[in-house]
Amino acid sequence: MRGRAFVEAGSLSTGDTTTLDAPESHYLVRVRRVAAGDTIQLLDGATVRHRATVVRADAKACLVEVGERLDDAVLAPRIILMGIVDSRAVADAVTMASEAGATEIVPVHTARAQASMPPPPRLTKVLRAAQRQCGRAVPLRVAAAIDWATALQPRHPTSSWVASPGAVTAPTAEGPDTGARVLIGPEGGLTPEEVTQARSAGFQALSLGPFVQRTPTAIVSALAFLARR
Amino acid sequence: MRGRAFVEAGSLSTGDTTTLDAPESHYLVRVRRVAAGDTIQLLDGATVRHRATVVRADAKACLVEVGERLDDAVLAPRIILMGIVDSRAVADAVTMASEAGATEIVPVHTARAQASMPPPPRLTKVLRAAQRQCGRAVPLRVAAAIDWATALQPRHPTSSWVASPGAVTAPTAEGPDTGARVLIGPEGGLTPEEVTQARSAGFQALSLGPFVQRTPTAIVSALAFLARR
Repeated sequence: MRGRAFVEAGSLSTGDTTTLDAPESHYLVRVRRVAAGDTIQLLDGATVRHRATVVRADAKACLVEVGERLDDAVLAPRIILMGIVDSRAVADAVTMASEAGATEIVPVHTARAQASMPPPPRLTKVLRAAQRQCGRAVPLRVAAAIDWATALQPRHPTSSWVASPGAVTAPTAEGPDTGARVLIGPEGGLTPEEVTQARSAGFQALSLGPFVQRTPTAIVSALAFLARR
Repeated sequence: MRGRAFVEAGSLSTGDTTTLDAPESHYLVRVRRVAAGDTIQLLDGATVRHRATVVRADAKACLVEVGERLDDAVLAPRIILMGIVDSRAVADAVTMASEAGATEIVPVHTARAQASMPPPPRLTKVLRAAQRQCGRAVPLRVAAAIDWATALQPRHPTSSWVASPGAVTAPTAEGPDTGARVLIGPEGGLTPEEVTQARSAGFQALSLGPFVQRTPTAIVSALAFLARR
């Protein structure tokens, strides 16, 4: 598989021959060096991924034949409630959460959070790049930012976790996986009062190891700790 | 705790009063905005961390009183055998492996690896920044690069793992934690032949989830999967 290209949402159908737009054609032919006969993948950016074969490697209008549909593994919800960090760290968080299998990031206005998220076009660009790189058919969803009180409201049937310092905790796997959400602090962390409030609201402590982790690193650690074994 | 500063290795002793050098003083006073009376931490960069109190906040020669020694939690070996990636990804890998509790990164010349590691002064800078950020007293060790055959040699008593695509595996925790090493591919991954050779050499498959993870992300996921629960 030589690379992944995007097409318009809803436009993919096995057996069709389609022409990619100029930026995607340029990416495949000039960056990924695809040639006629190479196997690639096509993403519609919304839900669907297909295998495809390059018919004509043209850097302005690459012609491809759409092959079989490749579905993602079905993921139980993995929701990151993320204290808002600076733009560069948000980009890292979105990229790494995509790779590590989060289904949704919900930015939260915590006491030490940054005031605002990057503009939507910037986020879309980061999400696309992550999707192209890690190959998921359904992109990570980035929700609108919510306030602290909203973040603490119950959300059944997911289990709720808050990343806290201390020894590593063992999340136990009982019954079907109905999803999990985990609260990760911004740079500087959650305040002790916020951790206490989250615990009172039913969030279980999840300790990620002995050292301070930046927000993107903590997201990946938390997703791995919450994977079902 | 307002920030962390470095002093010369071997120079820390509880009860002493010491003057920090100009770059460290500037960092604490101008960047971290410490004032007289603030609590900070001092690292000697090699093995030791102490609590300290700022006596005089001078941006050229900050005077501090050295408090109690703070030891790291004792870590069983967590060794990352890392296919060499480009310089920016190496910096990310070193930073994130530091935070996530790796004890050592060993760069490996795999089939798809980059030719060389960043120069040692660049690595030292990245390691220092990571240590200052995540607070560990003993830095991550970055070993000299080794070839593929050397990477596959047995290293008792650590368990050996190779990151491979597929369903998440459950590493089982039996007996004392004698350490673990995990082989993570460079950009483009290990080749199928390399995965087969590693398995033949006794490396167990460790699957990190359904999507492709870049090397730094895979390192964090692997360390979390290999944490003892």
